[in-house]
Amino acid sequence: MYTLEKLQELDAQDPLARYRDEFELADGLIYLDGNSLGPLPKRTKERVIKGIDVEWGTDLITSWNKHGWMNKPHDLGDMIAPIVGADKGTIKVGDSTSVNVFKSVAAALKIAKSGRSIVLSDTANFPTDLYMIQGLQELIGKENCELKVVDETEVEANLTEEIAVLLLNEVNFRTGRKYDMHAITQQAQAKGIIVIWDLCHSAGAFPVDLKGTNTDFAIGCGYKYLNGGPGAPAFIYVADRHKDAVIQPLSGWHGHKSPFEFSTEYVPSDTQTRFVVGTPPVLSLLALEAGLEIWQDVDMQQLREKSLNLTDAFIELVETRCAEYGFTLATPRERAQRGSQVSFAHKDGYPIMQALIADKVIGDFRAPNLLRFGFTPLYTSYQDVWDAVERLHVIMADKKYDKPEYRVKAAVT
Amino acid sequence: MYTLEKLQELDAQDPLARYRDEFELADGLIYLDGNSLGPLPKRTKERVIKGIDVEWGTDLITSWNKHGWMNKPHDLGDMIAPIVGADKGTIKVGDSTSVNVFKSVAAALKIAKSGRSIVLSDTANFPTDLYMIQGLQELIGKENCELKVVDETEVEANLTEEIAVLLLNEVNFRTGRKYDMHAITQQAQAKGIIVIWDLCHSAGAFPVDLKGTNTDFAIGCGYKYLNGGPGAPAFIYVADRHKDAVIQPLSGWHGHKSPFEFSTEYVPSDTQTRFVVGTPPVLSLLALEAGLEIWQDVDMQQLREKSLNLTDAFIELVETRCAEYGFTLATPRERAQRGSQVSFAHKDGYPIMQALIADKVIGDFRAPNLLRFGFTPLYTSYQDVWDAVERLHVIMADKKYDKPEYRVKAAVT
Repeated sequence: MYTLEKLQELDAQDPLARYRDEFELADGLIYLDGNSLGPLPKRTKERVIKGIDVEWGTDLITSWNKHGWMNKPHDLGDMIAPIVGADKGTIKVGDSTSVNVFKSVAAALKIAKSGRSIVLSDTANFPTDLYMIQGLQELIGKENCELKVVDETEVEANLTEEIAVLLLNEVNFRTGRKYDMHAITQQAQAKGIIVIWDLCHSAGAFPVDLKGTNTDFAIGCGYKYLNGGPGAPAFIYVADRHKDAVIQPLSGWHGHKSPFEFSTEYVPSDTQTRFVVGTPPVLSLLALEAGLEIWQDVDMQQLREKSLNLTDAFIELVETRCAEYGFTLATPRERAQRGSQVSFAHKDGYPIMQALIADKVIGDFRAPNLLRFGFTPLYTSYQDVWDAVERLHVIMADKKYDKPEYRVKAAVT
Repeated sequence: MYTLEKLQELDAQDPLARYRDEFELADGLIYLDGNSLGPLPKRTKERVIKGIDVEWGTDLITSWNKHGWMNKPHDLGDMIAPIVGADKGTIKVGDSTSVNVFKSVAAALKIAKSGRSIVLSDTANFPTDLYMIQGLQELIGKENCELKVVDETEVEANLTEEIAVLLLNEVNFRTGRKYDMHAITQQAQAKGIIVIWDLCHSAGAFPVDLKGTNTDFAIGCGYKYLNGGPGAPAFIYVADRHKDAVIQPLSGWHGHKSPFEFSTEYVPSDTQTRFVVGTPPVLSLLALEAGLEIWQDVDMQQLREKSLNLTDAFIELVETRCAEYGFTLATPRERAQRGSQVSFAHKDGYPIMQALIADKVIGDFRAPNLLRFGFTPLYTSYQDVWDAVERLHVIMADKKYDKPEYRVKAAVT
């Protein structure tokens, strides 16, 4: 049983507690939406201001060399690498997750087994991944790229020798269910399938072992658990064995072997650099860099242990303290199948979330009925879990959610 | 003849002189590289800090609605529209120029005349445009997309009924030669060719009339004359007649008709919004927004007149004051054929440019032998032209450029 005393004891012993001071979080705010937008690291403002004043403002165009702007897609990739179990040089930062889906699927299809064209994914995937594959299918024809979307429970049964490429989000963004990445990668590769993992809800949420799982390609975003700022540039991982085996179709000048020769012929870099495209948005990269600095000494096993304790505690406390209010757990109880978020279904999910937000417990809502809570061990304390459930209990006991204004949906929810 | 007195008189009468105070430019610095990276507007820092402190730091995820992050690709497009003669709603901001080349060419090929697959461009185009078309060609096959690159003098002769799409950079980034956009668009469309203009060296350099020229698609960047910051997001224009005629292949969730329904099927927006792709890098967008604010009351005819006066004066003064030092003008003398830059060829171009930069005249060098000077009427004065040529004269007269360290080339030049 998670009592207040026990949670306070866990906080006192928490080896990650010191990271909370890295973030700007208002007093009393319980921010359980870091799986949507990570909060502002304290060091970020100074880093961006230096980028504006000294780099752009004073050193101007020379900063591409002098302040390493040119290398940011590579340097930031190397900072992400240890967080997801990748070697240096295998991850490049730039573009959006959507664009990186396009690059990785197009590249994967080029090296897929001859005669195969089906890209398998699941309905649990974040929609833009599916949309980007649909766009590729429309562009190159169903005979070259055919999206097949199945329920997440049917993925394993569909890993057959008909499938060219598998693209899954490791974590279901609605329920927080986590796949067994290692087992599925092995199973797929045994059938000759190229495997792409979307790590948007994994990178910085728990340990990922890209190299150990033998993953072919991976993509992920910088603005959730990595705290890189709104719309921070995304990343792409390409296993070393594929680095010069295939060009991706967005063959921009920053992926060229010698971009400043300004030749008219595209000659791809010999390395994963060929997955870099155009001129990157430097100010957004500098913010991401600041966010990534915090990660450089985080122990990922400690992170996972705390994440599971936090989510265990939240599940238990909601199910006991709010037992009579009709919440149904949507997240797996098994630790191994859980990412770093908890979702509960409730018929009044939308107004309940609005009431929680008004009480400074920030989660979010996903249609049709899910309250979604992200648990981010770097800045969420065990006491936060207790306090969040207490506020939820008051909202339910007093029906504080039952206000007309809480039923008006915002454009972005 | 441009005398110092005449130039000072022009400064005294300059209706655009008041804009110089909008920019952070060190005393004595003559910044003639705004065609590569526009300088820092004074208002930008405050805008980005508000984005960091108030929007991201305090209002967190609610800022997608509360501070209009969600609308930035549209609002910033509407701010660019008057600069390039477009209607509101027809321009969307996001991704890099390279990625927007891919979107526009792929979309143009979809609505090209049946049986045509050739994309015509010229060797004067910025290389990434050609690379992106090569990537598309590799992806969809030469029978669907075949890049044909000719010399800029041969473009008109190649506007035949074999051509599907024409993609040109309005201004030659090396020489500053400017095409007659209106005449070429008419000539191409008379042959049934879809026309795409790259406006990277046009937007903010002189008036552009996208609507009046009947251009089909256009693309451009935010970090040169628009002063949006290093790697600022790019833009794409889609003529209203095409807005719902074709989807582009990078069909990300921000181009979906109802992105927050999270459906598994891509349904494109009914408008140019379908050319928006993934989650945009907000901090970089806020910097671009600040840069664009300055443009909102600029008279584009006054801008063009000053630009031509500046470049006229620079050409004349280099050719008279530095007559004996072996500079050859690479930019057209005819005003109508000139963008807002001047390039001179010189066998010692690289070290001469390094010596100029050491003397605080910032231009850049383009292989094999071009010194490139951008003239940006919002912050370049007539006196700057005089001073720049005087410093160049001293460098040549005293052979100050003849130092070994000036011959070492930087990674980015």
